Amino acid sequence: MKASGIITLLTDFGLSDAYVAIMKGVILSIAPRATIVDITHEVPPQSILEGAYLLQTSYRFFPPGTIHVAVVDPGVGTDRRPIAIQTDRSALVGPDNGLLAPIVDEIRADRGDVRIVELTEQKFWLPVISATFHGRDIFSPVAAHLLNGAALAELGRPIVDIRPSVVPAPTPGLMGAVEGQIIHVDRYGNCITNITRGDLDEHAFDGRLHVDIAGERLTGLYRAYSLGPVGVPMALIGSSGHLELAVCNGNAAKSLGVTAGDRLRVVRPDRA
Amino acid sequence: MKASGIITLLTDFGLSDAYVAIMKGVILSIAPRATIVDITHEVPPQSILEGAYLLQTSYRFFPPGTIHVAVVDPGVGTDRRPIAIQTDRSALVGPDNGLLAPIVDEIRADRGDVRIVELTEQKFWLPVISATFHGRDIFSPVAAHLLNGAALAELGRPIVDIRPSVVPAPTPGLMGAVEGQIIHVDRYGNCITNITRGDLDEHAFDGRLHVDIAGERLTGLYRAYSLGPVGVPMALIGSSGHLELAVCNGNAAKSLGVTAGDRLRVVRPDRA
Amino acid sequence: MKASGIITLLTDFGLSDAYVAIMKGVILSIAPRATIVDITHEVPPQSILEGAYLLQTSYRFFPPGTIHVAVVDPGVGTDRRPIAIQTDRSALVGPDNGLLAPIVDEIRADRGDVRIVELTEQKFWLPVISATFHGRDIFSPVAAHLLNGAALAELGRPIVDIRPSVVPAPTPGLMGAVEGQIIHVDRYGNCITNITRGDLDEHAFDGRLHVDIAGERLTGLYRAYSLGPVGVPMALIGSSGHLELAVCNGNAAKSLGVTAGDRLRVVRPDRA
Repeated sequence: MKASGIITLLTDFGLSDAYVAIMKGVILSIAPRATIVDITHEVPPQSILEGAYLLQTSYRFFPPGTIHVAVVDPGVGTDRRPIAIQTDRSALVGPDNGLLAPIVDEIRADRGDVRIVELTEQKFWLPVISATFHGRDIFSPVAAHLLNGAALAELGRPIVDIRPSVVPAPTPGLMGAVEGQIIHVDRYGNCITNITRGDLDEHAFDGRLHVDIAGERLTGLYRAYSLGPVGVPMALIGSSGHLELAVCNGNAAKSLGVTAGDRLRVVRPDRA
Repeated sequence: MKASGIITLLTDFGLSDAYVAIMKGVILSIAPRATIVDITHEVPPQSILEGAYLLQTSYRFFPPGTIHVAVVDPGVGTDRRPIAIQTDRSALVGPDNGLLAPIVDEIRADRGDVRIVELTEQKFWLPVISATFHGRDIFSPVAAHLLNGAALAELGRPIVDIRPSVVPAPTPGLMGAVEGQIIHVDRYGNCITNITRGDLDEHAFDGRLHVDIAGERLTGLYRAYSLGPVGVPMALIGSSGHLELAVCNGNAAKSLGVTAGDRLRVVRPDRA
Repeated sequence: MKASGIITLLTDFGLSDAYVAIMKGVILSIAPRATIVDITHEVPPQSILEGAYLLQTSYRFFPPGTIHVAVVDPGVGTDRRPIAIQTDRSALVGPDNGLLAPIVDEIRADRGDVRIVELTEQKFWLPVISATFHGRDIFSPVAAHLLNGAALAELGRPIVDIRPSVVPAPTPGLMGAVEGQIIHVDRYGNCITNITRGDLDEHAFDGRLHVDIAGERLTGLYRAYSLGPVGVPMALIGSSGHLELAVCNGNAAKSLGVTAGDRLRVVRPDRA
C-alpha cells in the first residue's frame, strides 16, 4: 500500500476540548507533511455502534493508502488490545472493541486481504503512556509512523481474530419480513438502519414495502427527501445505501420518538 | 482565474455525521493537493437565508482563485439545477436555489464578470448519482475538477439567470426610516441584519439613530461590544459591515426574544 | 525559531458562524502554504479561564516553531493590548488579558527565554481595523507574517510584563490539605482541576487521598476511568497531568452538580 499522505480521525472526543488538537499535534510532530481530515468527533460518547457505522460509511471515499484512526474507547486503560489493520486499500488504527470489525468483515466477505497486528512495539508510541488517552499516546503516533513508511509487521504481533462487530445484521422475520434496527440518527433526525439495499434485494423486495416501527406503519419507498409527504415519516434508501426513515423538512427521530438501537420491521404489502 | 489550490465548504450537514468528511474524501481522491477549508457546516438545517449570508460575508477573505462549494439544498433530488459560477476572483459550486445569488448580484452591481453554467456534464461527477447527496456526487467532484484545471465551459450549459436571492434588501419606511430584518443570529446571540453601513449612509444617517425591534427601542450606535451598556441591547456596525444588535457580555437574541427573519426599523431621533 | 509552517487557532467563536473561516482566509491570503490546525473554537464565550487551560494543555504537543493564535477577547475594541510572544519553542499571538500568561509563567519558571511585544506596527495588519474582530484584522495577519519570516521585533514595541494569569494556583489548606478549583469541564463531564500531579507530589501525597467537593467525599485515586466504581464520582490524574473528577460511563459535573470555578479540597485520609 502506497500512503496517500492522508490520516483521518474519528472519535467521540467532541470539539469543545483540546483532545483532538493534541492528537493532530502529535501526528504533525512525527509526520509533518500529513494531511489530516476529521471524519467526525461527535460520535455519541462511547457509542461503538454509531462510531463503527460512521467509519464504515465514509472510509471508502478516501484515496487508496489513507490511514484511518478511530477512537471510541470506553475500555481505555483496561486489557482491551490496541490494534492496527492493513487492507489492500487502507490502514486502520484503534482499539479492539468492535469499532473496526465491520470493515474487516466487509473486506473478508469480498475476499480481500486483511492483516492485523496487536500494537506492542512501544518505540512507535509516545515515551510516556497514560491510562486514559491512548488516542494521543499510542494510536496517533502509530498512524504517523505508518504514514512515514513503517511496515505493519514492525508495529506488533500478528493476530487473526478481533472482537466482533457490535453492528447487528438484519434477520429474517415471519411472512418474508426483514427485521432490523436503527444504527445512527443523523443531524436532520434521519434514522439510518442496519438494513441495506442489498439486504432488500436479497429478500426479493421489489420497491413495494411497508416499514413498521414504534407502532406506526410507513408505506412505500421514496426516491428523495423532497418527494415524500410533508410532515409524515417516510422510508427511502439513503446516500450510504441503507434503509433510512426521514420526514421531508422535519425530524423523523422526533416524530417517531425513536433513537439508535430501536427496532423496526420491513414487511410486504401483499402479506402484511 | 488561476486556482489558489483552496476549496471551501459551507453546508448545513453538521459535524456529527460523516457527510462532510465524505465530501472531503471525494475531493482529495480527485485533487490530492487541494487545501480544504470549512466555512461552516452548522447552517441551520435548510436555511438558505443564513447560508447565503455566511458565504457572502466570508468568501471575500479567501485568496483569488479559491473555489467555494455551498450545499444548503432542501430541493436535492428535484429538478432544481446544479450550477457553477466563475467570477474574476472565485468560483462557486452549488444548487440553484438562491444560495449563491447574493454574490452574483454583488459582483454584477460592481460590473464584475460573472459566468454561470448549469452542471450537465456527468463525466465530472461520481459514477453513480444518489437522489439525496449531490454534495458528494456532483458538487465535490466538480469543484475538484475545477481545481485540477477543468474550464467552466466544459462543465455544462451556459445560463444567465439563476434563482433570485432569498436575502431581502432593506426598504425605505415612513419619515426617513429604513426597514429591515435579522438574517443571522451568531453564537453570542448577536443579531445581524440585512442593513449595511452603506444602506445607512445612503439614507443619510449620521450615526445618530434608534432601532425599534420587538417592542423595544435601542438608542444610538456603539463602536464596540464592550463599550455598550451592560445587560442592555445596543446597536452597532458589526465586523461584516452590517447593522447588528448585541448585548455586552450577554445574548441579544434571547434578551429581545427575536430570531432570524424578525423585522426591525431604524429611525431618526429627530423624527421618531 | 524555525517556523514549522503550522498555525493553530483557539477561540470562543464557535463553528456555527463564519468567523473562524474568515481568519483562515486571511491567513492563507498572506501565507498560502500555512497548515492551519484548530485547537478548539468552543471555549465557553468569554471564558479566559478555560481558554487559557485548553491552550496550555495542548500547545506543547505541536512541533517546535508552531505559531499559536488565541482569541478569547471580551475587551476587544477597548485599550487592552494586542501582543505577540516568542519562546524557544513557539510563538503566541492574542490579546493581553491573561489568556497567554500561564504559558509565559510556565516557561519563565523553567528559566526559558520569553520575548514579548505589544503589536503596534500596522503594516502587518489588515488595512481597515474593526472595533469588534481583531482575530481577523490583527491577530491572523500577524501570525501569517510571522510564519512568512517576520521577526518579532518588527511587529511592535518590546514589553516585559503582561496581564497576569486568571488560572488560580492551588493553595495549602489546614492539616496538610490542598485547596483548588475546577478550571474546565470536558465533553464527558470530567472536571479538570488546577491541582497537578506535581502539586500533589510537592505536598507529599502518596496516592492515598480524599477529595471533598460539593458536600461529597471521593475516596482514593484511580488509574483509569474504566477502573473506577460504576456510577460514582472518582478522582484520577487525567491525561494532562491534572487532578480530575470523573464518573465511569457517566458525567461527574452533572452527578456532583459542579461547574468551572467551583472549589474542592484534597485531604489526607489519616488526618481527615
